[in-house]
Amino acid sequence: MSFETTATIASFGGKLLKLKHPAKSTNCDMALNLYLPPAALSGKTVPVLFYLSGLTCTGDNCAEKGFFQHAASQRGIAVVYPDTSPRGLKVAGEDESWDFGTGAGFYVDATTPGYKDGYHMYTYITEELPNALFSHFKELDGSRVSITGHSMGGHGALTLFLKNPGKYKSCSAFAPIANPINCPWGQKAFKGYFGDDSAKWKEHDATELVKQWKGPLELLIDVGTGDNFYKQGQLLPENFVAAAKEAGNDKGVQLRMQKDYDHSYFFMASFADEHVEWAAKRLGA
Amino acid sequence: MSFETTATIASFGGKLLKLKHPAKSTNCDMALNLYLPPAALSGKTVPVLFYLSGLTCTGDNCAEKGFFQHAASQRGIAVVYPDTSPRGLKVAGEDESWDFGTGAGFYVDATTPGYKDGYHMYTYITEELPNALFSHFKELDGSRVSITGHSMGGHGALTLFLKNPGKYKSCSAFAPIANPINCPWGQKAFKGYFGDDSAKWKEHDATELVKQWKGPLELLIDVGTGDNFYKQGQLLPENFVAAAKEAGNDKGVQLRMQKDYDHSYFFMASFADEHVEWAAKRLGA
Repeated sequence: MSFETTATIASFGGKLLKLKHPAKSTNCDMALNLYLPPAALSGKTVPVLFYLSGLTCTGDNCAEKGFFQHAASQRGIAVVYPDTSPRGLKVAGEDESWDFGTGAGFYVDATTPGYKDGYHMYTYITEELPNALFSHFKELDGSRVSITGHSMGGHGALTLFLKNPGKYKSCSAFAPIANPINCPWGQKAFKGYFGDDSAKWKEHDATELVKQWKGPLELLIDVGTGDNFYKQGQLLPENFVAAAKEAGNDKGVQLRMQKDYDHSYFFMASFADEHVEWAAKRLGA
Repeated sequence: MSFETTATIASFGGKLLKLKHPAKSTNCDMALNLYLPPAALSGKTVPVLFYLSGLTCTGDNCAEKGFFQHAASQRGIAVVYPDTSPRGLKVAGEDESWDFGTGAGFYVDATTPGYKDGYHMYTYITEELPNALFSHFKELDGSRVSITGHSMGGHGALTLFLKNPGKYKSCSAFAPIANPINCPWGQKAFKGYFGDDSAKWKEHDATELVKQWKGPLELLIDVGTGDNFYKQGQLLPENFVAAAKEAGNDKGVQLRMQKDYDHSYFFMASFADEHVEWAAKRLGA
């Protein structure tokens, strides 16, 4: 359960730790980045923002290009950047495409042969990783946790938030795959991880989940109008908002269509300050 | 002399343009990034900050990881990220090492056989590129220009500033190679680009140049105490400050040793806001 620190990098007055730990849920060693803001280094207990990455990424990309450390430093929030899948399990087919298998765990617990023995990113992100982090790093406040993410990770942030009421103080997303059962990326992934079990598919679809949400709902979702994956119908944020509206839960859902922005880290960096601020207000940071 | 725009990317309310143009001084097409802040897009004429990159980099790295756009957007400053050398000239030896030749032009005009036919980054950065930019992009104010850079690009920023009094409104540097004639990187490069002409070497050494500076001098230099290249004696910023002091020009030279920071973009990102602010004040931005 313990972490190995493979590098410690000064960043915005805090430290970015490159960590590795053996994980049972994913059946392999998992790498991640943990940003500790200056407040944590000076002995304060700080709230935590989980950032879930998109297809093909590791926890490194956003730590380098996402600019979350800028505001997290100022607001005294730790940021966790996990990996996007198990690595090196040698499951048949896991390395054949960039949008399924390695780098594409979709934050679900797979049930199909091969994948069920390690592609359990849902359990890893919601249970094993936070439990391990909060028992190892006493400067992290496990009672104040928020979640955000990009693309596949935006799907992860929305579904983990909606499936676990009360677990996260806030949720936001960049260009999320908001209705995976109705887009090619999601259909390919859910077929691969769940087979034809349509009930399972719906359990991990934010648009389906929001229909069942009880009570008020606050979400910040940014999507670029120049995002080619949005144009191709991979994201479908309007379906999510329509479902929230049908359920009477759209009042606090902010879908901001950001003019000309694409799907890249340039987009996220531009609004990272605002997403950290969204979390900070709800984390009491 | 005209530019081809190969991509336009929304960033912090402005646009990052990926540009390509044929350059005479370097005898090849040169790629660069130009960040236009929101003010430029709304028709204002804006001052310009040149950012010179370090060894092995192109104009892309800092545009992705340096976060100069954050403050440049707010202060209404355009940022130019040029490449670090000509590319594809097929000069014998140019691709044999990472610290000489391709990706390592050192912002000098080479005089040695082969290299003298294109490794003219000094002329390219101080004359050809700005002339081309200012005639093509009318939103850039060619009379308000500042310069900064990292490592080899910090050397470039310091030497171009010191060799051209009045050309740049301000200069700052991250982890500059501040005394190249006395460090392995500089000796290898100057030997390759100038042969044994020691007068030429001194003409491109910031520590030698600062001894001849007339009048007041203001410089902001950040170096990380955890920077391995600093520890190995590649940067030698103390030599520069000592030379400025000897010449009576150290009062306005701020060398800040930043605790624990390394040589990476994490370091630059952490202080990019302050370097843009340093330029903004002197550019009247």
